[in-house]
Amino acid sequence: MGAAVDTVGATPVGTPILGRVSPCPGGVPVPVPLRVALLGCGVVGTQVARLLTEQADELRQRVGAPLELVGVAVRRLDVPREGVDASLLTTDAEELVTRADVVVEVMGGIEPARSLLLRAIEHGASVVTANKALLAADGPSIYAAADERGVDVYFEAAVAGAIPIVRPVRESLAGDHVRRVLGIVNGTTNYVLDRMASEGLELEQAVEEAQSLGYAEADPTADVEGYDAAAKAAILASLAFHTRVSIDDVAREGITGVTADDVRWAASTGHVVKLLAIAERNDDAGSPGVQVRVHPALVPADHPLAGVRGAYNAVFVEAEAAGQLMFYGRGAGGAPTASAVLGDVVSAARHRVLGGRGPVESSYADLPVLPPQAAVTRFQVRLEVVDRPGVLAQVAATLARHEVSIEAVRQVSTVDDPASTAHLLITTHAATEGALRATVEAVAELDVVKDVVSVLRVEGS
Amino acid sequence: MGAAVDTVGATPVGTPILGRVSPCPGGVPVPVPLRVALLGCGVVGTQVARLLTEQADELRQRVGAPLELVGVAVRRLDVPREGVDASLLTTDAEELVTRADVVVEVMGGIEPARSLLLRAIEHGASVVTANKALLAADGPSIYAAADERGVDVYFEAAVAGAIPIVRPVRESLAGDHVRRVLGIVNGTTNYVLDRMASEGLELEQAVEEAQSLGYAEADPTADVEGYDAAAKAAILASLAFHTRVSIDDVAREGITGVTADDVRWAASTGHVVKLLAIAERNDDAGSPGVQVRVHPALVPADHPLAGVRGAYNAVFVEAEAAGQLMFYGRGAGGAPTASAVLGDVVSAARHRVLGGRGPVESSYADLPVLPPQAAVTRFQVRLEVVDRPGVLAQVAATLARHEVSIEAVRQVSTVDDPASTAHLLITTHAATEGALRATVEAVAELDVVKDVVSVLRVEGS
Repeated sequence: MGAAVDTVGATPVGTPILGRVSPCPGGVPVPVPLRVALLGCGVVGTQVARLLTEQADELRQRVGAPLELVGVAVRRLDVPREGVDASLLTTDAEELVTRADVVVEVMGGIEPARSLLLRAIEHGASVVTANKALLAADGPSIYAAADERGVDVYFEAAVAGAIPIVRPVRESLAGDHVRRVLGIVNGTTNYVLDRMASEGLELEQAVEEAQSLGYAEADPTADVEGYDAAAKAAILASLAFHTRVSIDDVAREGITGVTADDVRWAASTGHVVKLLAIAERNDDAGSPGVQVRVHPALVPADHPLAGVRGAYNAVFVEAEAAGQLMFYGRGAGGAPTASAVLGDVVSAARHRVLGGRGPVESSYADLPVLPPQAAVTRFQVRLEVVDRPGVLAQVAATLARHEVSIEAVRQVSTVDDPASTAHLLITTHAATEGALRATVEAVAELDVVKDVVSVLRVEGS
Repeated sequence: MGAAVDTVGATPVGTPILGRVSPCPGGVPVPVPLRVALLGCGVVGTQVARLLTEQADELRQRVGAPLELVGVAVRRLDVPREGVDASLLTTDAEELVTRADVVVEVMGGIEPARSLLLRAIEHGASVVTANKALLAADGPSIYAAADERGVDVYFEAAVAGAIPIVRPVRESLAGDHVRRVLGIVNGTTNYVLDRMASEGLELEQAVEEAQSLGYAEADPTADVEGYDAAAKAAILASLAFHTRVSIDDVAREGITGVTADDVRWAASTGHVVKLLAIAERNDDAGSPGVQVRVHPALVPADHPLAGVRGAYNAVFVEAEAAGQLMFYGRGAGGAPTASAVLGDVVSAARHRVLGGRGPVESSYADLPVLPPQAAVTRFQVRLEVVDRPGVLAQVAATLARHEVSIEAVRQVSTVDDPASTAHLLITTHAATEGALRATVEAVAELDVVKDVVSVLRVEGS
């Protein structure tokens, strides 16, 4: 370690450095720059580096001291990084994190990100991360290490990119009680579903289009199977309900089962299909618990989430006193994610200058995470049935036997179908997933039912 | 002043009180409660008092010390206040503010609110206020006093009620550059315009309906004339552009000139009419400046703001890196406003417990506020003209002479009108308000033009 490192290392963590000034010939004291280290220099990292340079004056005003980018850890030095001073690049991330006041991690993945963040914290740095996978898998270990060392962990960019949602839930709603969070937190799947609705595309066509536009990866699994949304759901649930929720607690279903037909039928009943990340407090079972799930759902066309088009994200929050809130914006992309990262860097840096601490992990409520079978929602079930009188009565009787109550039924005959098939679209009142599943199995066994085409939850009504 | 006041008065302001503990017989240290004083006990104040009591356990967890409501200043003691301990009521607000760590002001109006907040700050309290009128008229005097004394000023509830917008703009976007803010920040006028659109009501009918539902005051002037929105526009502009903007800098036009006909014509061209608070950075004139205005505007039906229904509020922000963001929720009401106040109380209280400071006034950019004539927008002009060939050519020639460029024209003849009147709806390309005004005057003088029925700006496209 060089002299600069030792000097700052000697300052007790959390001690305001406002009084620390560089010696300067003119006699005017200059605040010591805050050292920022960047781990990762991909799409987001290059934008973070750009903003640190371009906005240097403004950042200094807001922090009270200049921010100095002291190094950028990359895997390979021979890749050109546009706009990043080559002399800052290093492959020695382990060394870099020991000589920074704020470490920004935008490399992604569990390791080595976790080890590097823990090492940074151990050396007294506050950390800012966009790493949803890490936080959803093992956030508490990072939070605990930071809490013990008295440094900050910020992660606005880990959920819904540029949209300020972590800060509002952690701070603005700190005096309120969140009841439910419904999020469109994956731009790829929202783009795909939107194109299926507006153009009648099948899923595969829409995914290919998203890939050609750069909205989807070559391997779209993490997005279309809901893994990305599940990580964000776990983080949002943890924040909203003061309870540790990991990605393993999230019931997950992707959009691969959604067809153009499903989207058309949804439209015919005034709904749009969205992949939702849902976290809700459930007090029905006597003792309170938390339900966290990701799945495609029908959203009423007049719900604020229904209007979220293309690759945009939005998070809808219902709180006891505040009522309904929605936060909307870009959920991904280099510049939007970098904007969220920089906001966090300013907060962490201000605490180094002025003292104080950012929010710490809040898990005091420690609610049990309920199994997916406990989720209570309305469902829309679409059946292909034999087109003759009495069929609806049989189906309705089966639902009644399972105590699933019907809210609405639509029956549509297929014109000119020699096999005499009709479509039966049943919207239920709220039922548990367990009850609904048993009901659907019984309905499927009826002679008059040719196929259970789809079962989709209805949310947001 | 009593003993308790002296004790806390002796603690240097800004010093963390984490180490301060009450003596207790069992030997377990108990953190000293933070004393909260409430000024005003109307619709918002009673909800603040309720949440402080009902959420006491959660608030203690989040703050790190219990919050104790030490007094509620009211004008009259003989009015019953539901759920508020009568022994806490006092008419001596001047005394009350000297014995609190956090003073919450929800009384409204300029005086005595200003004097009481200054007095609270002088005695070392952090303050939380929902008072948009005061901040828009004289915020800087409050901010300066707090800065000098080293205490916090929070005011989330002053703009758009429960919607977290002040905190995101001050903190989340601290590393970004805001370009424009478009807000629906007055629920009364949004309700009125929404009812005019959905039910075809005239303004007066819709205002009466809003009054009967409690969405509008008996004297609706502050809302329908745009004064309330103008105060919020000034606050948002100050935050977004790091420039002092007072309500006197805001060009203001209310909705009283909007007719059911305007709303219908807007719909026929794919627009909705909204009262917008607009703050934008304008670099066109060579040197940068800020433009702040409140007026009715046409918003394209597919813009996120167009879907904001009823008494809801929404603020749409365009930032350089983050792109488009929108924040949506309840802009008024006791519980929603109290939720925003409590979030601020938690932040201010945490700083008393852990040290540190909230954001301070940021006015370093110090941009000039440009006159309304400099605003550059598209316009939609509706004319009643003589229904005969050549009229459109004459009108178009007049616009061309004033260098206002036409984007679209619709001409509609009035069926069975013996006076042969046609309606001409002209949408212009972007033009300054000055140029447009001169043009409209010239058009009005044409023999073939019977009336200039309306001139509305088009925003958000």
